[in-house]
Amino acid sequence: MYNKLTKEDISVLSSIVGESEVLCGNAISLDYAHDELGGIEKMPEALVRVHTTEQISAVMKLAYERNIPVTVRGSGTGLVGAAVPIEGGILLETAKMNKIKELDQNNLTVTVEPGVLLMELAAFAEENDFLYPPDPGEKSATIGGNISTNAGGMRAVKYGVTRDYVRALTVVMPDGKIEKLGGKVAKNSSGYSLKDLVVGSEGTLCIITEAVLKLVPLPKVSVSLLVPFGDMKSAIEAVPKIICSKVTPTAIEYMSRDTILFSEDYLGKKFPDTKNDAYILLTFDGNTEEQVERDMSTVADLCLEIGAIDAYIIDTEERKKSVWSARGAFLEAIKASTTEMDECDVVVPVNRVDEFIKFTHALADEMGVRIPSFGHAGDGNLHIYICRDDLGDGKWEEILELCFERMYTKAEELGGLVSGEHGIGYAKKEYLKKQCGETQIALMQGIKKVFDPKNILNPGKVCF
Amino acid sequence: MYNKLTKEDISVLSSIVGESEVLCGNAISLDYAHDELGGIEKMPEALVRVHTTEQISAVMKLAYERNIPVTVRGSGTGLVGAAVPIEGGILLETAKMNKIKELDQNNLTVTVEPGVLLMELAAFAEENDFLYPPDPGEKSATIGGNISTNAGGMRAVKYGVTRDYVRALTVVMPDGKIEKLGGKVAKNSSGYSLKDLVVGSEGTLCIITEAVLKLVPLPKVSVSLLVPFGDMKSAIEAVPKIICSKVTPTAIEYMSRDTILFSEDYLGKKFPDTKNDAYILLTFDGNTEEQVERDMSTVADLCLEIGAIDAYIIDTEERKKSVWSARGAFLEAIKASTTEMDECDVVVPVNRVDEFIKFTHALADEMGVRIPSFGHAGDGNLHIYICRDDLGDGKWEEILELCFERMYTKAEELGGLVSGEHGIGYAKKEYLKKQCGETQIALMQGIKKVFDPKNILNPGKVCF
Repeated sequence: MYNKLTKEDISVLSSIVGESEVLCGNAISLDYAHDELGGIEKMPEALVRVHTTEQISAVMKLAYERNIPVTVRGSGTGLVGAAVPIEGGILLETAKMNKIKELDQNNLTVTVEPGVLLMELAAFAEENDFLYPPDPGEKSATIGGNISTNAGGMRAVKYGVTRDYVRALTVVMPDGKIEKLGGKVAKNSSGYSLKDLVVGSEGTLCIITEAVLKLVPLPKVSVSLLVPFGDMKSAIEAVPKIICSKVTPTAIEYMSRDTILFSEDYLGKKFPDTKNDAYILLTFDGNTEEQVERDMSTVADLCLEIGAIDAYIIDTEERKKSVWSARGAFLEAIKASTTEMDECDVVVPVNRVDEFIKFTHALADEMGVRIPSFGHAGDGNLHIYICRDDLGDGKWEEILELCFERMYTKAEELGGLVSGEHGIGYAKKEYLKKQCGETQIALMQGIKKVFDPKNILNPGKVCF
Repeated sequence: MYNKLTKEDISVLSSIVGESEVLCGNAISLDYAHDELGGIEKMPEALVRVHTTEQISAVMKLAYERNIPVTVRGSGTGLVGAAVPIEGGILLETAKMNKIKELDQNNLTVTVEPGVLLMELAAFAEENDFLYPPDPGEKSATIGGNISTNAGGMRAVKYGVTRDYVRALTVVMPDGKIEKLGGKVAKNSSGYSLKDLVVGSEGTLCIITEAVLKLVPLPKVSVSLLVPFGDMKSAIEAVPKIICSKVTPTAIEYMSRDTILFSEDYLGKKFPDTKNDAYILLTFDGNTEEQVERDMSTVADLCLEIGAIDAYIIDTEERKKSVWSARGAFLEAIKASTTEMDECDVVVPVNRVDEFIKFTHALADEMGVRIPSFGHAGDGNLHIYICRDDLGDGKWEEILELCFERMYTKAEELGGLVSGEHGIGYAKKEYLKKQCGETQIALMQGIKKVFDPKNILNPGKVCF
């Protein structure tokens, strides 16, 4: 169906991006065959490292003419195989497009290339007394990847998700055309929102080469609160009650003792408290100490009333670092605790989180596997890991499929969706189909054909 | 191309919605031929007043089978002809679907039918100690219409636009299928965001029959500040400076003396101050008086420093009502001041508003017409009215076209877009085409065909 890259193609690619930026065969590191989770592996025929929008446009013109598949990759931190070149062809790496191009203080925007890392953007914003609110756990993801998955992160409770911060995109279409979507403006009712269609489309519709992102003024005060509970149920049940109290924390994270212990092991650092079974970790931010303290003590009092064992204010930089670095290491720590794992990124209504976690515990018992989890309790987005440990080959696949099937069915029953922020990619396609139904999948496939009639851009992902 | 409605069709429609809810011929009020601005007029063959999603589904099944155009109308407050049935057929009125179905305090959502009026939703939220942040000027618009145009309103500076508050939609497809898009969840990365494509699609892709909207806790304190300036330039130039100061007002509105006087005349009510040429009106909200007062005095001091003549705190209910009802009446007041008018709803970067308004003043002088304007200075969205006054028939059309051409070209030059919140509908199609270019219009047309292959839903709008 697709053409293989010829020597001539490689020489055209070299003339576009420079010889040193086109790698073939054994010159390509095996890391490029997979993403962070590694459920699916495939080497590209060529790795092409691009530096400009115009280079991407030229690469796509060639690919379009020659019918060669192209998969875009940022820093490869994905978890669903979206950046794996399953049809071979060109793997187009945007990591070197990593310039922060403009800070516009009049319009509260920052203009970035797609290869800027989330941690670089966060630091840049803070240095300039701004906050870029989206805060996914994986800080070394690229911003292009964050936009492509509509990543959410910890602060979604108060600030929303990546989509809410994307004002404009420059994109390259599969045929090489360069288009600008949206603008440096706060309102837009100018035709169908192509920009919002591209956000979360996992590199299947076009290639993001520049983004104008909204910033907010940096809150002057930010304090965290760690609240231990006797069990998971009480901890999780506190969350909708906190939300009902009309205080708006910036983040509400749920963590179990098990997960914290993995993280202590992994980081070699002590967590302030590991005596209890379940914890919620909250952040509050604002511009005055009074306001932040008032919010925090309202929540602390409420938690103590409904059975929390304590409520620790995490106000020194050192303690803040210790709890949040533990939280940030959960995924890696769980990964290090097992031989292989796969994950489920469901999102359910906030008041159903408790039920869902209980369900995964029962499922773990039933299946005889470990299923550790942690999650954004404040926004209903859970990260649940099925661990292989010492399961044999056939058994692992069988149990994995069974667990997924059961978990996604349960999520749907609770009014949830397949993915909160990690996307569909290659790994979750069947579950998306089940959730959306034929009509919506047909709409998505139709949209894909409109953008990419030759199906050369990241084929075999999301809805195909 | 389309079939005309037959007696048999009418009897099927009557059997679906009840005989009293199907009106034909002279039984239909002439109001249904046009929207609020009335630039384009066309009577439908039948007006069908629907009450449920299932009725809409049944109507669409008939229309799809019989190839009959269907245009959806809320309360007809649009300004670009989007709800005018330009191909005749069925005008489907959702005004009677006006129930607020659920308030979910755990998930901070409200579930509404599309015919709920913005003012009803605002009041309901407030009664329950919540805020529905989007606040377009036209309070008697339906929420279905607000979603269909991605309406923005006054509070976009701090809270964003309608899109940011739409969690889930129930929609009826052109062939009658009922689909649910999104969910009662804060994060979503489950395939292309069909929901976000429907938001702002002006009734051309499918019919919104239910919406789950996000609420925020009602801020406990809200104060307005009226700041007079000697001239427009100083007033508008203050806005990016306020934004740079990192205080976030809820709203920043610009108003000229002329517009205020129209409004005084129209309402028969005095505005607190009309001695000066230009004003900005700001609101600040928050949960403590100290915070709100601190923000307000930072901005008041800044404005006085850069040349404001005064800064009035509008803190009594009476004064608040007087200034905001004047602001709310601008459109009607300008309309009452002339024989006919048409409007331009451009949005430009905040620091280019000044330049754009100056441009419209020069244009008014050059063309010999009045072009009053007002606008959301804080988010760059301007409402500019070209007044016919006593212009003769040929001359009016000629000047109107020239003015639009010049204004949209200027907006584009400044990095702006055709519409901030009123949409494209019928009236602005040519300008959207010019702004977006062929590729993006072709994408939109392709998307329209995917959703509506027979082109029966609101044909001839947005991108066709």
